[in-house]
Amino acid sequence: MPSTIDNTPEKVNGLVKHPKKTANGHAPLIDVKSRPNLALWVTKDHKIYQKEESYPACGPEECVIHVKATGICGSEIHFWKTGRIGDCCVTHDIILGHESSGQILEVGSSVRDLQVGDRVSIEPGVACWECDMCVRGRYNLCPKVVFSGTPPSDGTMRRFVAHPARFLHKIPDNMSYATGALIEPLSVAYNAIRRASPYLGQPIVICGAGPIGLAAALCARAAGASPIVITDLEQNRLDQAYSMGFRKTLKIELGWDRLTTAAKIREVMGTACLPQLAFEATGAASSINSACYALEDGGTLVQIGCGKPDIEIPLMSMGFREINIITSFRYQQSWPVVIRLAAEGVLGDVDALITHTFPIEETVDAFETCVDRSQLAIKVQIVDE
Amino acid sequence: MPSTIDNTPEKVNGLVKHPKKTANGHAPLIDVKSRPNLALWVTKDHKIYQKEESYPACGPEECVIHVKATGICGSEIHFWKTGRIGDCCVTHDIILGHESSGQILEVGSSVRDLQVGDRVSIEPGVACWECDMCVRGRYNLCPKVVFSGTPPSDGTMRRFVAHPARFLHKIPDNMSYATGALIEPLSVAYNAIRRASPYLGQPIVICGAGPIGLAAALCARAAGASPIVITDLEQNRLDQAYSMGFRKTLKIELGWDRLTTAAKIREVMGTACLPQLAFEATGAASSINSACYALEDGGTLVQIGCGKPDIEIPLMSMGFREINIITSFRYQQSWPVVIRLAAEGVLGDVDALITHTFPIEETVDAFETCVDRSQLAIKVQIVDE
Amino acid sequence: MPSTIDNTPEKVNGLVKHPKKTANGHAPLIDVKSRPNLALWVTKDHKIYQKEESYPACGPEECVIHVKATGICGSEIHFWKTGRIGDCCVTHDIILGHESSGQILEVGSSVRDLQVGDRVSIEPGVACWECDMCVRGRYNLCPKVVFSGTPPSDGTMRRFVAHPARFLHKIPDNMSYATGALIEPLSVAYNAIRRASPYLGQPIVICGAGPIGLAAALCARAAGASPIVITDLEQNRLDQAYSMGFRKTLKIELGWDRLTTAAKIREVMGTACLPQLAFEATGAASSINSACYALEDGGTLVQIGCGKPDIEIPLMSMGFREINIITSFRYQQSWPVVIRLAAEGVLGDVDALITHTFPIEETVDAFETCVDRSQLAIKVQIVDE
Amino acid sequence: MPSTIDNTPEKVNGLVKHPKKTANGHAPLIDVKSRPNLALWVTKDHKIYQKEESYPACGPEECVIHVKATGICGSEIHFWKTGRIGDCCVTHDIILGHESSGQILEVGSSVRDLQVGDRVSIEPGVACWECDMCVRGRYNLCPKVVFSGTPPSDGTMRRFVAHPARFLHKIPDNMSYATGALIEPLSVAYNAIRRASPYLGQPIVICGAGPIGLAAALCARAAGASPIVITDLEQNRLDQAYSMGFRKTLKIELGWDRLTTAAKIREVMGTACLPQLAFEATGAASSINSACYALEDGGTLVQIGCGKPDIEIPLMSMGFREINIITSFRYQQSWPVVIRLAAEGVLGDVDALITHTFPIEETVDAFETCVDRSQLAIKVQIVDE
Repeated sequence: MPSTIDNTPEKVNGLVKHPKKTANGHAPLIDVKSRPNLALWVTKDHKIYQKEESYPACGPEECVIHVKATGICGSEIHFWKTGRIGDCCVTHDIILGHESSGQILEVGSSVRDLQVGDRVSIEPGVACWECDMCVRGRYNLCPKVVFSGTPPSDGTMRRFVAHPARFLHKIPDNMSYATGALIEPLSVAYNAIRRASPYLGQPIVICGAGPIGLAAALCARAAGASPIVITDLEQNRLDQAYSMGFRKTLKIELGWDRLTTAAKIREVMGTACLPQLAFEATGAASSINSACYALEDGGTLVQIGCGKPDIEIPLMSMGFREINIITSFRYQQSWPVVIRLAAEGVLGDVDALITHTFPIEETVDAFETCVDRSQLAIKVQIVDE
Repeated sequence: MPSTIDNTPEKVNGLVKHPKKTANGHAPLIDVKSRPNLALWVTKDHKIYQKEESYPACGPEECVIHVKATGICGSEIHFWKTGRIGDCCVTHDIILGHESSGQILEVGSSVRDLQVGDRVSIEPGVACWECDMCVRGRYNLCPKVVFSGTPPSDGTMRRFVAHPARFLHKIPDNMSYATGALIEPLSVAYNAIRRASPYLGQPIVICGAGPIGLAAALCARAAGASPIVITDLEQNRLDQAYSMGFRKTLKIELGWDRLTTAAKIREVMGTACLPQLAFEATGAASSINSACYALEDGGTLVQIGCGKPDIEIPLMSMGFREINIITSFRYQQSWPVVIRLAAEGVLGDVDALITHTFPIEETVDAFETCVDRSQLAIKVQIVDE
Repeated sequence: MPSTIDNTPEKVNGLVKHPKKTANGHAPLIDVKSRPNLALWVTKDHKIYQKEESYPACGPEECVIHVKATGICGSEIHFWKTGRIGDCCVTHDIILGHESSGQILEVGSSVRDLQVGDRVSIEPGVACWECDMCVRGRYNLCPKVVFSGTPPSDGTMRRFVAHPARFLHKIPDNMSYATGALIEPLSVAYNAIRRASPYLGQPIVICGAGPIGLAAALCARAAGASPIVITDLEQNRLDQAYSMGFRKTLKIELGWDRLTTAAKIREVMGTACLPQLAFEATGAASSINSACYALEDGGTLVQIGCGKPDIEIPLMSMGFREINIITSFRYQQSWPVVIRLAAEGVLGDVDALITHTFPIEETVDAFETCVDRSQLAIKVQIVDE
Repeated sequence: MPSTIDNTPEKVNGLVKHPKKTANGHAPLIDVKSRPNLALWVTKDHKIYQKEESYPACGPEECVIHVKATGICGSEIHFWKTGRIGDCCVTHDIILGHESSGQILEVGSSVRDLQVGDRVSIEPGVACWECDMCVRGRYNLCPKVVFSGTPPSDGTMRRFVAHPARFLHKIPDNMSYATGALIEPLSVAYNAIRRASPYLGQPIVICGAGPIGLAAALCARAAGASPIVITDLEQNRLDQAYSMGFRKTLKIELGWDRLTTAAKIREVMGTACLPQLAFEATGAASSINSACYALEDGGTLVQIGCGKPDIEIPLMSMGFREINIITSFRYQQSWPVVIRLAAEGVLGDVDALITHTFPIEETVDAFETCVDRSQLAIKVQIVDE
């Protein structure tokens, strides 16, 4: 199938954007199945390649999905370039991908409530539903979870994938597949917001204006946090934040120490209040430390970003000031509510996160775009119609 | 001083509105002080009248304020028409008024941080700052509180009033006095929202579309509650809610029993979710009962509205379903944050609550408008320039 | 099998007690199975009778248990005497019983982690593990729950019963079956304590010194609530509370109104503090109302007891004082922790709740004892060895 | 006055103890005042000395107290030996002491509720009662706090001291001054427990069996935490814990890495559960890291102990496991409740924390005892009768 996506970049608000294309026609499903099942693999020696898979079998409690949109996550760049995240290592070739939406092509024999043709967003973490963590309602901590595209499990970055029906969530007719694929990163942000539970009017700072930082900003704003200061090292990301309505941004300079950065954050926030919550979405030690000092006494750092395994923090200063740390991991019970929020517009223009779109055949190019800083990518998606 | 307010009513969205007039000129302060200090009194035998007071003395920790805008609260209609609210009775003539903003005319000798000419919103409940409740940060429960316009204390419904500086809060230059006087009812709503702490995307119902119900709706929406269903017995109030952006409204019919009303509320909410929080702003037993049944199992009723002292509720059904009740009383620590939120537009168009405006000389007419149902009043304000 | 239990009553601390007998010998399991499967039935016309059942089949995910101890719950007296609790009605004959422990006789083919001979406490509410409430970790609110001995499901008051292995919990070797059968009422109390989450040193009142009130007292004391005032209409129950170490008791007189009772509760508590939590374990409107007024401003009523469907409460007074209500229904995730707490002695002498013990053949007598006020029963258990 | 304290050491449970002596006689107050006002000073060059002060003046809102018992805090050893804690430095000679009780000798003219002869425990942190933190009920974070014995403020380690009446708390007649002086370290522990709010039956580990670790253990046990594992590097401290009823102790070996220690902690806890809360009372990086790994997924580290300003923690591992950190600083609103708990015996034998007692004239010896490891001191107190 030739690419039907017009990739001519345009320039909007100083950002180079590949056009976002919404679905405008549906091939008959029977024809779709005959297309090659292209999959994106990563190797333990830091290569990615695309290869055709066989069409998946559909288990009794599964559906086969035609994946229509998939976002590339920063974690996938980590697996590609470094072969690991924390203790999770690429030890053999696996298929990446966990931010996907698509259309159901086949329905397993035990599946109720879903049918062929349904448009769904895929929740990639398949919990066991039996262990203590699952019973407690914290299935994101299930030790038996099978998580798409995280070693040793294959992911959704292929044209056709089978997935347990229980972790497929219908999206409304008026929601695009592109938005449906954003439910995953929005869920990461949503989980952090739920964990921190900002109150209406709580002053916050968000460190990092990448996809997760911006998603957190959208969720925090929708939750009534105010004012919101967003920081980053790169001006283009702050421009993106500004264009999404976040007026208080701070470009961090490399030479600043933590106290300087903290003071600057407070300065941008204004005189009426101090930050009481900091959502740290970079994982960088310097950013974490600055956030700790920017917080008002009694405040809370919410750690979302990934970085080095061990991080030095000013724990004694935090103790004298009763600063807490909340961490947030993936998500649980988020899909239905995040789909509702995105569909009703409560989160604002979530599609603004998507800066580049590539057809599935150009998945490798999409990955290269992510690591080419001149491309100024925020969220890059791979689509198929 | 002749009235300078144009009281010609206009019709907007089916609502009869008196024009809201913003301050457009400032008389020299020296001239203002020479005006008569008109005050609005209520008697224990259900009369209200206006009478000139002497100009107030300014204590060392007080300021004298030229009251520029004052809203009429439903509680004041209660004091007027029934002589009491709960155990709080009008036993002698008192001056009403507790929703006010104005400009500082005099500053007490011990006051820091405020000066003549400052524009302020008045927090009417003056807590003792010494008792257990105050130390716990719950000064709204202070047993020694002196609350403006609540027996036995005189209120702010006069041209000049002295008030402790600690309970005066500066408003930004771009905030009108009308908005400054709304901080009080918005604080009532804000306190209820803080107590209930809705999460982003939590489905809620608000029972009653009067000033407090609508203020709660504004706060709940700003806090990310979604969807929001609003109910009332009167269509014009629901029209007002609709014009403020609340699309899911339900007109309650008098013949409905609690199970019917509950089912209708769930029907209006839609199929994706059930109400998990109900903000009850009517105080009517029928509404409270309907809300209990409308809630999803595990949900919470937040009681804000005032009604009869004793109310029959389905406590056993609530027990089988782990339905909780949260009550909310006045407010504490709300002025600074609510001023910020109103100024930054986070709450939306709060001025839409104001349907009628009268000059101070016509205060009695303003009260009559509140009780004339044909006037379709939501919030009526008294102003002076 | 002739009764081997010595039923000679003894008098301890003014309480008539049937001796509690711990297991002192084990018949071979094969012999046990040959005994008649005596079951206790209740009819919709308020009769109870014992009848022999066939030995139960064991499903693949079930175990068959030889029930060794079963407590009689107040709810069962309600089903017997009134035919209903709230909307839950006895419409045909059912077997009662939901407070049981026993020994495993057979293990289903899919069951792991349990084997023949294991000593277990039975969690009677079998949740679906699939619905929203189960996923949220609130499986006590599962709408598809099958609850032993609650219409339309048969219960555990028989010699042999099959039960899903997932809802069987091993008890330690040094825990008696009698204690194992107390895990259910202790779980009711535990759930209420978890919902209310008293802080160390929080002053509380417990209304009602029956089995649930006393179990709540044990849990509240273990959770550090202090001081604890316990009220009841009957002196013998207060004597029981006293003998369990609760020194602050109050006998309610029938003539007292709610304000009088509230004042007496505060008087018994002492001058250092006021009740901040009230656990209401009677369900009586008068007790609920007294508790509301006894609470300190800002306090919380925890409703555990069952009573009339609709109860009149002083909702406006509660609103002025920010009194909340928490309700508690059954339990979830309680068995493992309550077994630990009982085994480690953290809850104190839980067996003190048991005042009477009858062999299974005398189950009808056991029920009659419950309703004979001269017997001064708290918890009556039926045992089999 | 010659020392009347018998300092002959005795050996109990392997611990060398100086006898704890309770007050057995009261000199007339007039005579007491004539004694020299001996004070314990620390210098910036790491010396301590005792010097006579003049008798203090009594401000209108103060009382003068005859200090009867004062504990030595680890922080005071830090000020002595290192001249600082975090950013708080000894820049000139100050009087130490903040764990004191005593008897009122003089009452200021504005003081109500206290009189000469009253026995009180001294709350050493005098908050401003006006700032945002105070209004929020978090006066331990008051930026204007004056804290006894912390630079630049003089402390209570003298015979006579004037202190604001608002921060004096009466102790019951049956509470010794020694116990009254323990209210301060118990408050440190209490605040941490309140912040972490363990639930009944929550499994916890306490790292460090010094005075604060043991006080935390007493509070945690009283709050129903169970099981409780206590760790330390020194066997004598674990023996002390054991003698106080804590049966699950672990002696940490110096060679263990964090994963080894974590595994050992879990092993000591047993198979039924994993630690969900860790109270870290050592401040050592190795202990903090071990605690992080010992915690169950979803658990919380409560940091109480002081150590190096910056600590490296496994933040990414914590993030993958949703491990939070709560910090706790001093206390607020704790004295009344901790006095009640200690008086009612809810905390157990708090006096067991006191291993050594010295008369005021031997204060320097008392300090030397604290740093002499062969003395096996836990809490050393200085007394005067």
